[in-house]
Amino acid sequence: MTELNELSALAARQGLQQKRFSAEELWAACDRRIGLREATIGAFIHYDAATARRQAQACDAGQQAGALHGLPFGVKDIIDTTDAPTGYGSRIYVGHRPAWDAGVVAAIRLAGAVVMGKTVTTEFAYRTAGKTANPHNPAHSPGGSSSGSAAAVADHMLPLAFGSQTGGSVIRPAAYCGVVGYKSSFGAWTLAGVKPMCHSLDSLGVFARQVADLPLVRAALAGGPDKIAALERPPRVGLCRTFDWPKVETCMQSALEAAGQTLARNGAEVRDLPLPGAFDGLGYAHATIMTYEMARNYAFEGARHREKLSPPLAQTIDDGWKVPLPDYLEAQALAKRCRAQLDEICQEYDVLLAPGAPGEAPEGLHATGDPVMNRSWTLLHVPAVNLPGYKGPRGLPLGLQAIRPQGDDDRLLQVAAWMEQRIR
Amino acid sequence: MTELNELSALAARQGLQQKRFSAEELWAACDRRIGLREATIGAFIHYDAATARRQAQACDAGQQAGALHGLPFGVKDIIDTTDAPTGYGSRIYVGHRPAWDAGVVAAIRLAGAVVMGKTVTTEFAYRTAGKTANPHNPAHSPGGSSSGSAAAVADHMLPLAFGSQTGGSVIRPAAYCGVVGYKSSFGAWTLAGVKPMCHSLDSLGVFARQVADLPLVRAALAGGPDKIAALERPPRVGLCRTFDWPKVETCMQSALEAAGQTLARNGAEVRDLPLPGAFDGLGYAHATIMTYEMARNYAFEGARHREKLSPPLAQTIDDGWKVPLPDYLEAQALAKRCRAQLDEICQEYDVLLAPGAPGEAPEGLHATGDPVMNRSWTLLHVPAVNLPGYKGPRGLPLGLQAIRPQGDDDRLLQVAAWMEQRIR
Repeated sequence: MTELNELSALAARQGLQQKRFSAEELWAACDRRIGLREATIGAFIHYDAATARRQAQACDAGQQAGALHGLPFGVKDIIDTTDAPTGYGSRIYVGHRPAWDAGVVAAIRLAGAVVMGKTVTTEFAYRTAGKTANPHNPAHSPGGSSSGSAAAVADHMLPLAFGSQTGGSVIRPAAYCGVVGYKSSFGAWTLAGVKPMCHSLDSLGVFARQVADLPLVRAALAGGPDKIAALERPPRVGLCRTFDWPKVETCMQSALEAAGQTLARNGAEVRDLPLPGAFDGLGYAHATIMTYEMARNYAFEGARHREKLSPPLAQTIDDGWKVPLPDYLEAQALAKRCRAQLDEICQEYDVLLAPGAPGEAPEGLHATGDPVMNRSWTLLHVPAVNLPGYKGPRGLPLGLQAIRPQGDDDRLLQVAAWMEQRIR
Repeated sequence: MTELNELSALAARQGLQQKRFSAEELWAACDRRIGLREATIGAFIHYDAATARRQAQACDAGQQAGALHGLPFGVKDIIDTTDAPTGYGSRIYVGHRPAWDAGVVAAIRLAGAVVMGKTVTTEFAYRTAGKTANPHNPAHSPGGSSSGSAAAVADHMLPLAFGSQTGGSVIRPAAYCGVVGYKSSFGAWTLAGVKPMCHSLDSLGVFARQVADLPLVRAALAGGPDKIAALERPPRVGLCRTFDWPKVETCMQSALEAAGQTLARNGAEVRDLPLPGAFDGLGYAHATIMTYEMARNYAFEGARHREKLSPPLAQTIDDGWKVPLPDYLEAQALAKRCRAQLDEICQEYDVLLAPGAPGEAPEGLHATGDPVMNRSWTLLHVPAVNLPGYKGPRGLPLGLQAIRPQGDDDRLLQVAAWMEQRIR
């Protein structure tokens, strides 16, 4: 029998609605799993059982109003919470107590979620890794920067958890941990109370067990339908090898090809989609914009707390102040042109499918892997969903990402759900 | 003789560089003016003379490194500061002490600015007015939401001050107070540590005595030149009456026409620019987006501190949760189409010129005037500069705004400086 903590968000919600179990029982199952596995996985920077339990009890005592009623929800520790310290993965802010809940935290609370605690992030969602291990093999990275959220969902500690993506911080850890990860369109969800890294790139996302769970979160945050409508016909799929194909491991190359064949067998119209030449410059543009903006978003920390920054972050801040303004503006202009081109391209496709990461999760917990397969898409402001289903030679998950133009999140979830059922 | 506190930022900088006076003397002149006038104007929510003086003394003791060395700078109280409480104009956060300086505050400190204190904002930069009066006539509104910053610069309490604009919160108070106001392109300056209102609309700006002061701030925040290059030839000016022309007072209609004639006499190619029909929907789209996003950005305050919100804000939050997602997405799609159209239009013009406000500052301090002349431009993400120079029938300032496409801030300042010298 499936334990309660293994249920998808949707299944758990149905069980709660049908009163087959209580929110407190659901919390208790997650709590047991955390107790059993946290020493190995290290998903949490802060978990207070009593605070979480009280919220679950309040759900059981109250009306089932919201889309997330009684569902345990992890919150990446760059997202502010009033009832737990928020340290941003930084030595500067250890024990920091925000004066507010982030907008998205307040919104999931309004929808009835049980905020389970704060999950491990790399330092300020940049490179320097935290303590989290990959549930599929603890000698391997879970990916980052949303390391704890991806690992907690993958390890059945909770059904839902927030992440954020500036380079590849949602899709990559989802791919490495073998869970569904959804990065919303740039601007789709409020970043109020989320520590800013790059104001042109930061987007929020969520980890879940299946695509069908995602509309629950989207309904709570953005409004809109809390379930996915069936697709009217099989989708037109653009297989997108990207200009970084040489950096993609053989196993991932095979996974993308295999997915294309499987989807075609299921009636999808699958075509290769070579991106326009201008897209080759997006990786460099992303680096330029990220470096420039990090210097400014971390201007205070760089000036006043430099000794508490990791050397790579301190270096990036220094580099960022040196990026010439014309280079930054040129990178932004390229991104703008490519976004318009992508809108055109997507007239002919219902979805693009691309690698979610270069391959399996790398060995060692000192680094979180390469965002090379994500950064251009992040700069393009598109929503993306990681779909697990394939494995690499070491038995670790491989993830493919489904993509639609900015703002088309609902349609993306619809197509992603169709594909997920076929490639799992 | 001009008092030190009356100097423009550029003139003050030159005086400091030539050691004609010290940063402490400049501070002292501003301090005297504040002492003389603050009871009437009410520009500050927090001013601590000792803290400001210490910074000025540190400037005098150190090297003249940055673009803003020794210049007193006001900070709107929705922008976080470590050395002064930051209350966001809200009863919820009275005495709140942020753990950081906002990115832009850290950046101006790095450039040598003397942070003079916190200027009055309306409640969360929305409608409910603070205590500030218009320096030209204290019975009239200074405009808002950046009320204190505009009034402090207009009243010669300091040469520079930050504002922010979500509807019309920089350009309108600049127009009402008769100072230069510059709203930067959406995304141009980091909003880290600025209380978010609407993540698709919020932009930072600055008030100053002349356009030539603005590059000093822009150099500190964004990089780029700290002075304005001369224009190679008189500009092509598009006179833009907008779809809200019927709401523009006669005096302001005359000011726009007069400016067009003056600029034409000075060699500019001035043409009427009728906006495409789609632009007529931008005001409504702005309202839809603003309401939708405010509910989410203030989700915490709405849920946990409702009794401390003004009734209009509480109502807007309630309304925002009810905006259907498709309406929001449609409003965003319209804005996107209009931005592309504006880029096309601006191929034929070096600058657009439009009213900065409907007319003179309204009487009474209970409200801050109508953002009708600003909200569409804010939604279009364009940079704008308010140019004073005309007066209305009550002797109060009228402001015209110069506009260029998003990202063209440097070029805008260049053209605005040319126009400013001709219409003053």
